[in-house]
Amino acid sequence: MAKRNILVAHGGGPTAVINSSLQGVIEAARASDGVGKIYAARFGAEGILKKNLIDLTDVPAETVSLLSVTPATAIGSCRRKIGDQDYPALMECFKEYDIGCFFYNGGNDSMDTCYKVSEMAKREGMDLAVIGIPKTMDNDLVITDHCPGFGSAAKYAAFNAAELALDASGLPIHVVVLELMGRDAGWVTAASALAARTSHCEVLTYLPETRIDMQKMLADIEKAYAKGRGLLVTVSEGLCGLDGEPIADSGIVDGFGHKVPGGVGTTISNRIMTDLNIKSRAEKPGLLGRTSIPYAARIDREEAYAVGRRAVEVALKGETGYMVSIEADRSNGYKWSLGLAPLSKVANAVKNFPLEWIVDGNKIADEFFDYALPLMDGEVPKFAHLR
Amino acid sequence: MAKRNILVAHGGGPTAVINSSLQGVIEAARASDGVGKIYAARFGAEGILKKNLIDLTDVPAETVSLLSVTPATAIGSCRRKIGDQDYPALMECFKEYDIGCFFYNGGNDSMDTCYKVSEMAKREGMDLAVIGIPKTMDNDLVITDHCPGFGSAAKYAAFNAAELALDASGLPIHVVVLELMGRDAGWVTAASALAARTSHCEVLTYLPETRIDMQKMLADIEKAYAKGRGLLVTVSEGLCGLDGEPIADSGIVDGFGHKVPGGVGTTISNRIMTDLNIKSRAEKPGLLGRTSIPYAARIDREEAYAVGRRAVEVALKGETGYMVSIEADRSNGYKWSLGLAPLSKVANAVKNFPLEWIVDGNKIADEFFDYALPLMDGEVPKFAHLR
Repeated sequence: MAKRNILVAHGGGPTAVINSSLQGVIEAARASDGVGKIYAARFGAEGILKKNLIDLTDVPAETVSLLSVTPATAIGSCRRKIGDQDYPALMECFKEYDIGCFFYNGGNDSMDTCYKVSEMAKREGMDLAVIGIPKTMDNDLVITDHCPGFGSAAKYAAFNAAELALDASGLPIHVVVLELMGRDAGWVTAASALAARTSHCEVLTYLPETRIDMQKMLADIEKAYAKGRGLLVTVSEGLCGLDGEPIADSGIVDGFGHKVPGGVGTTISNRIMTDLNIKSRAEKPGLLGRTSIPYAARIDREEAYAVGRRAVEVALKGETGYMVSIEADRSNGYKWSLGLAPLSKVANAVKNFPLEWIVDGNKIADEFFDYALPLMDGEVPKFAHLR
Repeated sequence: MAKRNILVAHGGGPTAVINSSLQGVIEAARASDGVGKIYAARFGAEGILKKNLIDLTDVPAETVSLLSVTPATAIGSCRRKIGDQDYPALMECFKEYDIGCFFYNGGNDSMDTCYKVSEMAKREGMDLAVIGIPKTMDNDLVITDHCPGFGSAAKYAAFNAAELALDASGLPIHVVVLELMGRDAGWVTAASALAARTSHCEVLTYLPETRIDMQKMLADIEKAYAKGRGLLVTVSEGLCGLDGEPIADSGIVDGFGHKVPGGVGTTISNRIMTDLNIKSRAEKPGLLGRTSIPYAARIDREEAYAVGRRAVEVALKGETGYMVSIEADRSNGYKWSLGLAPLSKVANAVKNFPLEWIVDGNKIADEFFDYALPLMDGEVPKFAHLR
C-alpha cells in the first residue's frame, strides 16, 4: 500500500493539552510505516484555505516531546467559521498535497466541518479518511464522557479558587470575586466550588445556566460575608440577568459591530461596593485558565495524547467519519478507554451542564465532583489550617 | 535560663511563601529547649491588640509541614496601620502572655512597627527580643538583596506571561493585555518581560516607575501588533499618566471616601479597541499572583523558611532590633546567606526599581534578569515552536 500523507489542523481556542494531541498524532504517524508526509495547517482552517502548511515530517523528536509542556497551539489556530463556499478550497488543498488522512482537532464547529469534509470526500470518491479529535475546555461535546482540555481547565479553576479562598479568609478585608471562562457552559466554573471543601471561607458559585437575580445575589453575598470567615464568589464570564441579557456590558461596539462584553466579575464587585458598602475586588485570569501548564491535569494530558494517537491508528485502518471519544468507568476508581463516535451525531449537538447539579442557585452538588474530580487527577489540595 | 514564650504575627498582604517562614519559626522554636509557648497573633496586629492569640505549641508536625504548600496566611493578617496610640495595648499583650521574643513578618510598615516595639521594650526595660522577618512580593525592602515572596510572584508573572504569549501568538485574533500586581513598584511586572525570550510573540512591558503617554503607548501597540506575530502587553496595576494620576479610575468612592482604582488592563484594552479598532482583551490574575503554589519558586520557599528559622535562633541568642536579611552572591552561579539588618535602617526606607533597567519605556534590560532569574529558580520555560 502506498504511504499516505496526513494533515492535522487545530480549530478554535486552544487548551493546555491540545499540543499533547498533536504529539500523539505525530508520534503515531512516525510509528507507522503507512505514513508519508506529516503536515500541519498553519493557523487552522485558514492554513488549509491558503495552502499554508507546515511540514512536520522531520521535526526533531526532542521538539515533539516538548509539546506536552507547551500550552496554546504550536501550529496555530483560527476562529474562522467554515461556510459552504469554503469547502471546494479545502478539498483542493487536500488534493494538491495528496492528503490521505485529515485530522481536525476542535470542538463543535470543528466537528461539523469535519463531518462535512468526510461526506464530501465520500461523494467525490476521494481516498480521504477524516477523523475528529475532540478538544474543548467547555466540555460540551456529546457522546464522549468528557473533552480533552476540560480536566485541566477544571483543575485550574478548582485549585486557583481553593488558593484564593485562603487569601480571602486569611485577610478578610474584602469580598473576592473570581471570574472564570465558559460563556455558555458552567462546567469549568462549577469546578471552582471545590474551594468550599478546602477552606473555611464562604464560597458562592454562579453558572451561566441560571439567570441571575442581582438583588438576590447581593443579599446572599451580604449574608455570607457577614459570617466573618471571608467570602469568595466565583462566576462564569457569561452570566445573564433575569432578562436573559449579559449582566456586564463594556459599552463598546467593536469594528465588526459586535457588542464587547464587559467584565462580569468587575461588574459584580462594583455592585458589592456601591450597593452593600463592602470592599470588594475582582480577579479574572481569563485565558490563563486554558494556558497554564503547572495546573494542567496529568490524566487530561494522557487522554489528549491518546486521542491523537488513536485518530491516526483508526484512519490508517480505513475508518472515516468518526470522532475519537473517551469512555469512562467510575464504578471502582476511574478507568478510561477510547471509542469512536459518528461525526454525524457529534456535529451540532451540545452537552449541557445538568441543572440538578446546581443547588440553591449558588452551590454545586457532590455529583459534579464525582464526575469531574477524577478528570482533575482526583486531587483535593491539602492545606494547613491554624486559625 | 527560663524558657521564653514566643509570639509571631503576619502584617499586610500575604505571599506564596509567608507560611514557609511561619514553618521556620515553629520548627526552630521546637528544636530549641529555650522556648516555652509558641503563640501566633490571629489576624496580625489586630490579634495582638485584642489579645486574640493562637497557641501553636502542640500543633501536629504534619500540619506544620503542610505550611510549605499552603498559600495566603495560615494565622491571618490585617492591614491595620499601627499608630502611636496602639503601642501601649501591644505591650500589654506581650506582658500578659509573658512574651520573650516577638517576630513580625511583613514589609515596610511592619518593620516600622517592629522597630518601634523594640525601642519601646528597651526604654521600658522589658526582656523582649524583637526580630523582623522580611516579606513582600513588592521587593522594596532595603539592605536585603531581595524579599521572600518576590521570587514566587516574579516567577508567576514570568511564567504566566510566557504561557499567555504563546496563546496570543497561536491564535492572533486580538491583543492580550496582562495586568499584574505592584501598585508603586515594577519588580514583579518586570519579570513578565521574560515572555519576550520564550516566544516569537511581541511583548511590551510597562512599569509604574514610568509615566504613561497614552498616545505613544497606543502607537507602539499598533506598530507591534502589525508585525502579525501576536502581541502581549504587560502592565502594572499602578500605571499613571503624564499628569501623575492613575490611568484607570473605577468612578467608585468606597465607604471610607477613598477612590477605588479601576482596572488598568481593561482601560488599556478598551482604548486599543476604540482608538485602534483592534480586538483586545485584558486578563488580571490579581491576588492569584501571590497565592499560587504551583508557580512558587523553590528557592524562595527555602529562603522564606530559613529567614523564619534564623529569626528564632538570633532572638534566643539575645539579639533584638534587627530584621533578618538575605545576602546574595551571583559571581559564580547563585549563592545566598543570611545576615542581620538594623530595623532602624529598614523602617521607612524603600528600594526602588532601577530606572536604567527600563529600556525605551517598554522593554526590560538583561540586568534585571541577571538579578531576578536566580530568584525564580533560574528557570526559563522551554516550549516547542513549530510555526
